[in-house]
Amino acid sequence: MSRTLYSLCGSDLSRPFSPHCWKVVMALKHKGLSYSERPLPFTAIPDIENGATRTVPLLRDGDRLISDSFAIALYLDDAYPDEPTLFGGEGGRAMARFVEGFSQTVIHPAITRIAIMDIHDMLDEADQAYFRRSREQRFGMPIEEVAAAREQEIAAFPGKFTPLRHMLNFQPFIGGDGPLFADYILFGALQWLRITTGSVHLPQDDPAYAWYERCLDLYDGEARKVA
Amino acid sequence: MSRTLYSLCGSDLSRPFSPHCWKVVMALKHKGLSYSERPLPFTAIPDIENGATRTVPLLRDGDRLISDSFAIALYLDDAYPDEPTLFGGEGGRAMARFVEGFSQTVIHPAITRIAIMDIHDMLDEADQAYFRRSREQRFGMPIEEVAAAREQEIAAFPGKFTPLRHMLNFQPFIGGDGPLFADYILFGALQWLRITTGSVHLPQDDPAYAWYERCLDLYDGEARKVA
Repeated sequence: MSRTLYSLCGSDLSRPFSPHCWKVVMALKHKGLSYSERPLPFTAIPDIENGATRTVPLLRDGDRLISDSFAIALYLDDAYPDEPTLFGGEGGRAMARFVEGFSQTVIHPAITRIAIMDIHDMLDEADQAYFRRSREQRFGMPIEEVAAAREQEIAAFPGKFTPLRHMLNFQPFIGGDGPLFADYILFGALQWLRITTGSVHLPQDDPAYAWYERCLDLYDGEARKVA
Repeated sequence: MSRTLYSLCGSDLSRPFSPHCWKVVMALKHKGLSYSERPLPFTAIPDIENGATRTVPLLRDGDRLISDSFAIALYLDDAYPDEPTLFGGEGGRAMARFVEGFSQTVIHPAITRIAIMDIHDMLDEADQAYFRRSREQRFGMPIEEVAAAREQEIAAFPGKFTPLRHMLNFQPFIGGDGPLFADYILFGALQWLRITTGSVHLPQDDPAYAWYERCLDLYDGEARKVA
């Protein structure tokens, strides 16, 4: 069966950077499912699969089309129950939404303010115009103003990982002894930050950094291949 | 079999307030296990059960003695597998540690700064002396200074619940359709805040407040009985 993951890139097709798409890459690897990835610039997304989506990730799995990273993970776990679980049961399925909430509302806003100009600069001209327009509409200010607090955000960034550090006193992954989709949720955010800015902005002796490195090591270092 | 939960109170035995003890109350109710609660002032804790613990909750279950709220929840789930699960599988067991991390490192420090003088004032004289000494050692400053940022902490408090609000867009409890121990972890923090200060300091139209109210309604309003 043919499986295609549509993801997001800038001018360089070899450096897909979307946090949500990275969650799905890791979920597919976790499930041991083969796929081909098709990274797209922002402005090409509306044209794929007969206008099926305005956002990526979009997964084509045979005759199925699924968008939204969490929905894709739920789909994969239901469609391939014999492959390793992404959630570890009903409780894990529910609590992964809390981890998503933490990632989306605490970590993503900080990364946006740190990386927004880097992201802009990675894009082709037409995508830069789209990105500026859509983000300035969302934030109600020029993207340069969103980026104004960059240095303060970088200084405050490690402090946001205290919940993860507490947890790492008890276990190596959010999933416990091994990673689950909840790990990939938070990992995707840091992967986005690293690929767009060149650093995850965590100290090298930080247990949260060590956890990120453990995720980079998974699946033959799949996520490390994009520098 | 005789089951006793040793918990924490001030001068008023009928108003136990420890967040960690409330987690265990809710876990015992969740499991449908009968028990008697024995609230103790701080300075009485070292004398119970032949000096078994310096902190509560402490649960005696027949010939077993277990301390630490998370350890007690794990014990209850293992010892009573036929009663409703507190974790919903291995993934939930692991991810509850992340929720604990969030509660302990994001919510508890704020509550400490809001409630520390209220807690002090609830205690008998000998316990006030113990509380002041131990907290001033922990924080390296007079408890009045810890409380100095009280009003700012109250103003910032609702903002800390964005991860929960994101999750509540998808489901009514951290556990999904119904509560699990992860709910009781965060609930315990707000119960502590309400009993010591008279308010959870969340707006009445806040989905996070509605979630707290849902928890208060559980088990015939068990947690609402302490005003």
